[in-house]
Amino acid sequence: MKTAYTNALILTMLQDYSPFIGTLVVENEVILGVYEGTALPITVDQKIDMSNKALLPGFINTHGHTSMSLLRGYADDLPLQEWLEEKMWPLEGKYRREQIIAGTSLSIAEMIRSGTTCFLDMYDYMDTVAELVEETGLRASLCRGCIGFGDDSLRSRKLKEATDFAKNWNGAAGGRITTMMSPHAPYTCTPEYISQFIEKAQDLRLPIHTHMSETAREVAQNVEAYGKRPVAHLDSLGFFDIPSLVAHAVHLTDDEIALLGAKNVKVSHNPGSNLKLGSGVAPISKMIDAGIRPSLGTDSSASNNNLDLLEEIQLAALIHKGVTQDPQAVPAKIALQMGTIYGAEALFLDQDTGTIQNGKKADFITIDLTGTHMQPTHDIVSHIVYSASRNDVVDVYVDGKALMVNRELTTIDEEKVSYEANRSFQELAQR
Amino acid sequence: MKTAYTNALILTMLQDYSPFIGTLVVENEVILGVYEGTALPITVDQKIDMSNKALLPGFINTHGHTSMSLLRGYADDLPLQEWLEEKMWPLEGKYRREQIIAGTSLSIAEMIRSGTTCFLDMYDYMDTVAELVEETGLRASLCRGCIGFGDDSLRSRKLKEATDFAKNWNGAAGGRITTMMSPHAPYTCTPEYISQFIEKAQDLRLPIHTHMSETAREVAQNVEAYGKRPVAHLDSLGFFDIPSLVAHAVHLTDDEIALLGAKNVKVSHNPGSNLKLGSGVAPISKMIDAGIRPSLGTDSSASNNNLDLLEEIQLAALIHKGVTQDPQAVPAKIALQMGTIYGAEALFLDQDTGTIQNGKKADFITIDLTGTHMQPTHDIVSHIVYSASRNDVVDVYVDGKALMVNRELTTIDEEKVSYEANRSFQELAQR
Ligand SMILES: [Zn+2]
Ligand SMILES: [Zn+2]
Repeated sequence: MKTAYTNALILTMLQDYSPFIGTLVVENEVILGVYEGTALPITVDQKIDMSNKALLPGFINTHGHTSMSLLRGYADDLPLQEWLEEKMWPLEGKYRREQIIAGTSLSIAEMIRSGTTCFLDMYDYMDTVAELVEETGLRASLCRGCIGFGDDSLRSRKLKEATDFAKNWNGAAGGRITTMMSPHAPYTCTPEYISQFIEKAQDLRLPIHTHMSETAREVAQNVEAYGKRPVAHLDSLGFFDIPSLVAHAVHLTDDEIALLGAKNVKVSHNPGSNLKLGSGVAPISKMIDAGIRPSLGTDSSASNNNLDLLEEIQLAALIHKGVTQDPQAVPAKIALQMGTIYGAEALFLDQDTGTIQNGKKADFITIDLTGTHMQPTHDIVSHIVYSASRNDVVDVYVDGKALMVNRELTTIDEEKVSYEANRSFQELAQR
Repeated sequence: MKTAYTNALILTMLQDYSPFIGTLVVENEVILGVYEGTALPITVDQKIDMSNKALLPGFINTHGHTSMSLLRGYADDLPLQEWLEEKMWPLEGKYRREQIIAGTSLSIAEMIRSGTTCFLDMYDYMDTVAELVEETGLRASLCRGCIGFGDDSLRSRKLKEATDFAKNWNGAAGGRITTMMSPHAPYTCTPEYISQFIEKAQDLRLPIHTHMSETAREVAQNVEAYGKRPVAHLDSLGFFDIPSLVAHAVHLTDDEIALLGAKNVKVSHNPGSNLKLGSGVAPISKMIDAGIRPSLGTDSSASNNNLDLLEEIQLAALIHKGVTQDPQAVPAKIALQMGTIYGAEALFLDQDTGTIQNGKKADFITIDLTGTHMQPTHDIVSHIVYSASRNDVVDVYVDGKALMVNRELTTIDEEKVSYEANRSFQELAQR
C-alpha cells in the first residue's frame, strides 16, 4: 500500500533544511520517497492532498510521567521538594492500576492532539502504560523509574520489575516500543543502587535515563552526601559510559557542560516545568556551543501543566534569548529541531524517526497554515515556532497510520478518557 | 433587551475571586447582574447556555502596534536596535494607508479569536485604525505614536496630528474608543518634544504613553545623552505627574521601581517580545511587591510574533518563577488579573471593563472546559493559566455584542483579511 501526501509544505528537519512544496510517499509504515514540486514520479495507491499545510516530523517528548496528568493543577505554585514530598508522593502512593490507565490515557489523547508522535515515559505500572501505547498507536521509549527508598528487598524487587519490563517490551508493538533502565535520581537512589541499573543496562544493551541537577538544593545535597556535584557523582559511577539521557540539567558548571558534551550525554530540556517549579533556566546556549543537541520534554502535567511539546519548542526559542540577552540564542530553526530530530537522538531512535527522510518510519504531522496568526506566509519556520499553537496541528501519523485526521482522534475516545480521568481522580482523593 | 448567560463557571477577577457556577445578565451593553447558582431571580428576554465554559472578563492588551502584523516573521532573531533601524523602519517607511488597513485588520481578527476584548494601539494613520475598531466592535485605547526625528516642522506636524486625533476620537464608537498622547520613546524624542506631549495631555486631560527602559543599551544611551537613566529623565520632565503608562520597563533599579510605585505609574509588561528580542526579563515580582499592578501587552507581531494575550499571561506566570527561582512568584490568580483587570487599570478604563461586575460594560469571553488538557477539573484558574491555549476561547463579547460565537467571528471576514495581508505585504516588499 503506497500513499502520496501531496502539495504539502515539507520541513524535513535535516541539517540546514529549507521548507519546500512537495510530496511525501509512504509505503505501509515507511517513508518511500520525498519529492520536491507537484509532479509525482511513481505510482501510488492513494493520494491525500495536504495543500495549505506544513508537513514535518512529529514532536518528540523526551521526558515525562504520563500517569501524573491525573494530578494536573493539584497543589500548584510550591517549591519542588515540598510539592514532591508533601503533595505528589502521598497521592501517588495511593495510585492503583486504574489511575495509571486514566492518567496515561488522558496524556496520550493530549499528546496526539498536540502533534507528539513519540514520548518517553518514566513511571510505575509500566506494563499497563505499554499496553496503552500498543493500543493507541504512538511510539514510545518506556522505563520503570525506580525510587530507591525502603529496604533492600523492596529495592531488589523494583530493580527486577524494571529489568523484566525492559526485557519484555523492548521492540514490542512492531518496534514502536523501546525501553530504557531508569534509576529515578541521584537524590532518591544510593550510588550502589544506581550502579546496579548501569550494570543491567549494559547487560541488556539498553540506554539509561535519570533526573539530574534540576534544583540548586538537590546539587547542594549531593555535595553534602557524596562530596561531589551530581554530574561528577554519576560520572564516577560510569553512568555516562553507556548511552545515557538526563532530564533537566538546569544547574551545570561550564566544566560539567564540557563533560556532558565530550561523553555525548543526551539532555532533555524541560523549560516549562523548570520555570513553573522555580528550578531555574538550563544553560541551553552553552550546551549547544559545547556540541550537545538538547531535546525537549514536558515533564509531567503535574508540573507543566500540559503535554504540549510545541509550547516547549516556543519556550526554548524565547527564554534563552531573554535570559542571556542574546536575540540570536536558540534560533527558530534549531528550536524546531530540538523538538523533533534532537528528540529522536535523545531516545536513541534517530535511525527510525525525527526527520522526513527515505527509509525512516512515517511519523509525521501536518500544521494548518491558513490562520490569521500565520499571515503573511513568508517564513513558516518562524511562524510555527513563534506564532502557531497546538490547535494548528491537523493530522498526526505514526508508522504510517493516522492517529489524528483533520483534528479527530482515531484511536482514542476523548470524552470517555476525560470522564474517566475525573472519576479516577475523585476516587483517589477520597481514598 | 436583557440576556442571561446561564450555567457558566464565572471568574469575576475581583479581589480574591473564586470561580462559581452562575448566571451573568446583560442589558444592552451593560452588566445588570451576576448571580451564583442556577436559579435566575429576574426575567430576561433570552437565555444563552454557557455550560462547560468558564466566563471571565476579556483579555486586555496594553501595548502594541497592530499595523505591524504585516511584518510578522520578517527578519527574526536580530538585536532590537538593528532589527528596528535596519529592518523595521525602512519597510514601515514605505507604509501607506493600505498597509495599515491590512495589518490592523489581521491583528483585530487574531485578537478577537484569542479572547482580547480591548487593546492599546500606538502607531501612525490612527484615523484608519480607529475606523477599523469602530467597525469590528473591539474596545481600544488609541494613540498616534510620534518619533521625533526630522526637523521642527515635521515634529510639529506630527504633534498636531496626534493632538487632533486624540481630540477627535476620544469617546467615539459609543465610548469604545478612548485616546492617549504618545511620544514614542526617550531615545527617539528630545526632552522638549516629550514635554510638548505632556503639556497637550494635560490640556486634553488624557493619559500619556511611551516605551521605557526596554534594553540595557537604551538605558546607557540615555545616561550618555542626558546624564540620567530613563526613569529619572521622564520624571524630571513631569511625565509621571499625569496619568501615565510605560511599556516594557525591563531595566529598572530598585529605586526606580519604588518611584514608579509611589507615582502610580502603570506598567505594560511585554514578556514575549522582551524575550524574543533578547531585551531581558522585567522585574515583575519586585514591581508587585512595590504595589504596582503590572498589565500585559504583546507589543507587535513583528517582535512577538503573535497577539495572543493568553500566551503573555502564561509567560508572566512562568518566567518570573524560573528566573527568580521562586515557584510562588506571580501566582496563576495574579497572572490572570494582570491580563484582565490590571490591563483595564493600565488603560484607565477600569470604571468600564476588566471585571465581571454590575454596572460595567459587558466585555467578556468564554473558555471551553472540556478539552483533555483541562482535566481533571479541580482548579480552573490553574488550568486556564498553565494548560489552556488560545483556541479554548469560544465566545467573545464587547459592549454586550458578540464578536465571536462558537469560534466564528461575526464582524470580520478572516479569509479576506488573510488574503489582503499577503497581497499588501507583497506590494510593500516590491515597492
Ligand atoms: Zn520528571
Ligand atoms: Zn512597542
